[in-house]
Amino acid sequence: MVNGIERPLDLLNSAKGKEILVQLKTGKQFVGTLLAFDIHINVVLDNAKEVENGEQTRSYGLTFLRGDTIIFISPSAAAKA
Amino acid sequence: MVNGIERPLDLLNSAKGKEILVQLKTGKQFVGTLLAFDIHINVVLDNAKEVENGEQTRSYGLTFLRGDTIIFISPSAAAKA
Amino acid sequence: MVNGIERPLDLLNSAKGKEILVQLKTGKQFVGTLLAFDIHINVVLDNAKEVENGEQTRSYGLTFLRGDTIIFISPSAAAKA
Amino acid sequence: MVNGIERPLDLLNSAKGKEILVQLKTGKQFVGTLLAFDIHINVVLDNAKEVENGEQTRSYGLTFLRGDTIIFISPSAAAKA
Amino acid sequence: MVNGIERPLDLLNSAKGKEILVQLKTGKQFVGTLLAFDIHINVVLDNAKEVENGEQTRSYGLTFLRGDTIIFISPSAAAKA
Amino acid sequence: MVNGIERPLDLLNSAKGKEILVQLKTGKQFVGTLLAFDIHINVVLDNAKEVENGEQTRSYGLTFLRGDTIIFISPSAAAKA
Amino acid sequence: MVNGIERPLDLLNSAKGKEILVQLKTGKQFVGTLLAFDIHINVVLDNAKEVENGEQTRSYGLTFLRGDTIIFISPSAAAKA
Repeated sequence: MVNGIERPLDLLNSAKGKEILVQLKTGKQFVGTLLAFDIHINVVLDNAKEVENGEQTRSYGLTFLRGDTIIFISPSAAAKA
Repeated sequence: MVNGIERPLDLLNSAKGKEILVQLKTGKQFVGTLLAFDIHINVVLDNAKEVENGEQTRSYGLTFLRGDTIIFISPSAAAKA
Repeated sequence: MVNGIERPLDLLNSAKGKEILVQLKTGKQFVGTLLAFDIHINVVLDNAKEVENGEQTRSYGLTFLRGDTIIFISPSAAAKA
Repeated sequence: MVNGIERPLDLLNSAKGKEILVQLKTGKQFVGTLLAFDIHINVVLDNAKEVENGEQTRSYGLTFLRGDTIIFISPSAAAKA
Repeated sequence: MVNGIERPLDLLNSAKGKEILVQLKTGKQFVGTLLAFDIHINVVLDNAKEVENGEQTRSYGLTFLRGDTIIFISPSAAAKA
Repeated sequence: MVNGIERPLDLLNSAKGKEILVQLKTGKQFVGTLLAFDIHINVVLDNAKEVENGEQTRSYGLTFLRGDTIIFISPSAAAKA
Repeated sequence: MVNGIERPLDLLNSAKGKEILVQLKTGKQFVGTLLAFDIHINVVLDNAKEVENGEQTRSYGLTFLRGDTIIFISPSAAAKA
């Protein structure tokens, strides 16, 4: 068992308060601090920044991301974005 | 804890009566004052304005936005739009 | 509080009998008098007219619009369409 | 109140046995006599004809149309198709 | 017969054991004998044949078609396909 | 009645342990031995092979296919793929 | 082992702790160690790597993949990716 992850949402729960990377279906990525999520994978990021081709292109501050536009979420990749 | 946000909808609740920026799947953005939302992320904006490439292109006044067309919502980014 | 709108559907309820503008995912818009709606945002317009690039291109009379094709609905913008 | 339409499906109910025009997401239209519908907006047309650019291009007779492919339905526009 | 159809699925029920034409969202059509269907409009055809531009391009025998890929189903049009 | 198929899933049930052909929305096809399926039409194939233009292009072994990406499933066509 | 698979999710259950290959609708693939999944086919991979054209292009570490973006999952193909 890695990090006590038994269900997919356990990963998101353990990432609360930490930087995550969110890949959207539009092709863009967001990085920010995960504040909250729900079962639809709606998430709220603090200090959200849009990333394109590895460069941060715009800051959005507190941002609500609708779950159905998300492809994947990676906590550990945020540091490299 | 930032601003008491424990669930994603808490951010929308705290943004009621304030300017928000809404990114649609069509590529367009709206800014306006958030009056109401529901669990489908349907929202009603007052004084809604369509934004393209950072310029306000059209005013719609009171507007109902259907939740399934929304990618993200940012209260703090509205001031910059 | 603007116009007593606490939930998104309150805006549609207050617009019954009035002209509204409906933006479809196809890119087209409809204007017409809102007669009825439901929780799926299916709407019925009377005297419905299709609008493209600001010009009314075709009249459909009484028309049922399926909710999942709708991006936004603006009562106040109908007068300008 | 127009024609006693309080809910969107009331329009479809009042159109039973009459000619309707159905706009599909594919861009094509059907005209035919509405025989039946359900809450998914699945409809059955009798004497269904496909219409492209205002011309009837093919006859399908009795036809079941799946609701999730429908954009709008207009009873009054069928006569002009 | 037309008068026996009160709900959309009645048409499919009356077509069991008969040839039907199925239009898919991909643009292709299937013809075959309708053996079974369910409320999702999943259907099973016997002696299924793919049709493109009015020509039968491939035989699939017994085939399960997933309902969410179907645009329309016409029993009477199958003979002409 | 052909093969005792009264409901669409009866065909899949009768195909367990046999070769089937699965057409995906992406345009690709899979052939393999059907081991399991559920009401979402999620399927598990053993000895799964991807097929493009009638040629087997890659082997995947045991494979889980998500139901919402499937257009049709044909047991009898697998032999010809 | 093949014989233990009666339902589609049994394959995912048997693959826990093993390398799997995940094909996304975007065309990209991920390989990684399956830590968790749920009925929506949301999955968590450890040591996730993005694969394009057979080459590993980026490492994401612990990653949550949203189920509705997944086409297929193959445990045995991961070794070859």
